[in-house]
Amino acid sequence: MKDIQNTPVELQVEGGIATITLNRPQTLNALSEDMLAGLQGTLDGIAVNHDVKVVILRGAGNHFCAGHNLKEMSARRADADKGSAYFNTLFATCSKMMLSIVNLPQPVIAEVKGIATAAGCQLVATCDLAIAAEDARFATSGVNIGLFCSTPMVALSRNVPRKKAMEMLLLGEFLPASRAEEIGLINRFVPADALETATRQMAQTIVDKSPLAIKIGKKAFYAQCDMPLDAAYAYAGAAMAENMLARDATEGINAFINKKPMPDWTGE
Amino acid sequence: MKDIQNTPVELQVEGGIATITLNRPQTLNALSEDMLAGLQGTLDGIAVNHDVKVVILRGAGNHFCAGHNLKEMSARRADADKGSAYFNTLFATCSKMMLSIVNLPQPVIAEVKGIATAAGCQLVATCDLAIAAEDARFATSGVNIGLFCSTPMVALSRNVPRKKAMEMLLLGEFLPASRAEEIGLINRFVPADALETATRQMAQTIVDKSPLAIKIGKKAFYAQCDMPLDAAYAYAGAAMAENMLARDATEGINAFINKKPMPDWTGE
Amino acid sequence: MKDIQNTPVELQVEGGIATITLNRPQTLNALSEDMLAGLQGTLDGIAVNHDVKVVILRGAGNHFCAGHNLKEMSARRADADKGSAYFNTLFATCSKMMLSIVNLPQPVIAEVKGIATAAGCQLVATCDLAIAAEDARFATSGVNIGLFCSTPMVALSRNVPRKKAMEMLLLGEFLPASRAEEIGLINRFVPADALETATRQMAQTIVDKSPLAIKIGKKAFYAQCDMPLDAAYAYAGAAMAENMLARDATEGINAFINKKPMPDWTGE
Repeated sequence: MKDIQNTPVELQVEGGIATITLNRPQTLNALSEDMLAGLQGTLDGIAVNHDVKVVILRGAGNHFCAGHNLKEMSARRADADKGSAYFNTLFATCSKMMLSIVNLPQPVIAEVKGIATAAGCQLVATCDLAIAAEDARFATSGVNIGLFCSTPMVALSRNVPRKKAMEMLLLGEFLPASRAEEIGLINRFVPADALETATRQMAQTIVDKSPLAIKIGKKAFYAQCDMPLDAAYAYAGAAMAENMLARDATEGINAFINKKPMPDWTGE
Repeated sequence: MKDIQNTPVELQVEGGIATITLNRPQTLNALSEDMLAGLQGTLDGIAVNHDVKVVILRGAGNHFCAGHNLKEMSARRADADKGSAYFNTLFATCSKMMLSIVNLPQPVIAEVKGIATAAGCQLVATCDLAIAAEDARFATSGVNIGLFCSTPMVALSRNVPRKKAMEMLLLGEFLPASRAEEIGLINRFVPADALETATRQMAQTIVDKSPLAIKIGKKAFYAQCDMPLDAAYAYAGAAMAENMLARDATEGINAFINKKPMPDWTGE
Repeated sequence: MKDIQNTPVELQVEGGIATITLNRPQTLNALSEDMLAGLQGTLDGIAVNHDVKVVILRGAGNHFCAGHNLKEMSARRADADKGSAYFNTLFATCSKMMLSIVNLPQPVIAEVKGIATAAGCQLVATCDLAIAAEDARFATSGVNIGLFCSTPMVALSRNVPRKKAMEMLLLGEFLPASRAEEIGLINRFVPADALETATRQMAQTIVDKSPLAIKIGKKAFYAQCDMPLDAAYAYAGAAMAENMLARDATEGINAFINKKPMPDWTGE
């Protein structure tokens, strides 16, 4: 086993649930180069791991994630081009990782405690589902340091109504979990000491479904949402017809019709 | 008059209000082939019926609609192609019917009691407006039987914030009416015994408007919502200018300026 | 100084905050030709005025804005073409003004008291942020006079969930401020006597940020929101890299790392 202290991203797989832990509590799990590389590698591995049915993304220590690593970034101002090439690569790398969460066959649940700020808040918005501790706090606070949260905005504005997103982005203020739930940034919030259990329970609910149906559905969700209505229906109708022909749909529908309590999924 | 027991879709037109009743309570008004055909024919008739100003869509018995007819579908697994052609046609037929609601000149109000699941929940999302009984329950529960609600997702994800839609689709759990209202799936919920009256009242409010203005507006709503902002404004501006030239706008504006209590609409 | 009684749009600039006052309380600040021209000119001036960091849009008297000037419009029915050319120009002029708010480099906050109806409600939806008095009321009420709020719908449907927008547009009923907040039309509501202070406070929060970051961010928000996800990320990533190279980002990030309480912005 790897030394947990020396790895920026820890992965545990058990009972179909992959738990990804951002493991740099001393920097509030900032998305440094090695953290981004670790996350990308971990997500790439999960994408082809058929034992994983659902993913939980969490932070070690007291917080979820505080966004980019500002010290690491600032150091590159000493580059000959003042960091221009580095910054472009960094944001492209981070965006690629965020898109990998969207494109991952398995659903990803953010388990949020403490703060989720800037690209950390973007991670929450990017995950398919999110549960937070009651006392968790959310902000797109880049505006406070002269660096507008332009990439976090991409995920935020696709989850949260326009004026609420603008308020977060322009004012840079912290939102409590209850407000984050109201505006659609997270699904639920629970007492801090119930967070881990609530997240596991949500993950288990997904593990108990047909992994094939989940995979077809997650992919179809993001594929259809930018299409015009009639194209979206043509796409989704074909996806459902294909789904009907799968073994798991036969099993599930037969179980339902015959009142069999628990279908036996094979993912085919 | 047709025998109400033998017709899957019942239509009543009175005082400008068309009431469509899904009339197969014994199958929870499932969208079987004959139900879909009945709905399509009914909608096609209403589209050209100038006596109809607004439509109410409801279910006979204790429920709204439980989605597709799984027994009817399962039987077609015996086809030579295991049902492939049938399923593709079925979902295309259902999508065409849903699009007919969107494209109908008259607004459609879903009146929801009991359960609205899978394609039944899609019907609610597809209608322009929806009122539910306090104890109505909503789910996109296909995921529980290995058949992800991919086509319901098309309507759901255009009405409900992304994470709340994903939660319904991935977990397959029932939502009470109060939660459905919060996330935007329905407009209002009322005590069960007030449902019919509340729906009629909402329908009457629309009957009392200029049918021409309503028709221009509903069409413009769906036409502009997928356009870029400047194209949407060019389109909507032309729609308003055309609306201004209509007789009903003259009548309505004159009534307003002269404080005449009730304009006399002709729909021209 | 201009006579405040004779100018349809008043502008005050102080401490980085431009306050635009719609100044025709006797017509509930209707968007007459001269009001639209005044607004367009004022916005065009602000767009190139580097002293302005944020804009407040408010109405003189007891109301925000009651939409178009129906008497002025009705008079043009006497034109040879029954007003056709005039109406097309009018709605195009109004849409251009609304787009100027979206395209303005500085954020615009609507300060809403009394009523905001039709194109007045559109103004609220168009502004980046909105605060209302507790007793303010909102409606897209054109449907009541035979003139559907098709252009207001463009802004409304981009801020408010689909069924809630449809309800406002089809029923034409007034919404209290609390409901407007719930559905995303405004950000906050406060007691009427706290409205001006609350709006100033929100404006000041924005004045205290880097105007460069705010400008980059507002532009990026509207640019990316109609793009597909990967294109949005490519665009936003480039915007952030450019932002990182600006002097204000260096200043802000250094202040943050060194715990300097208040960065010194220059807008470069």
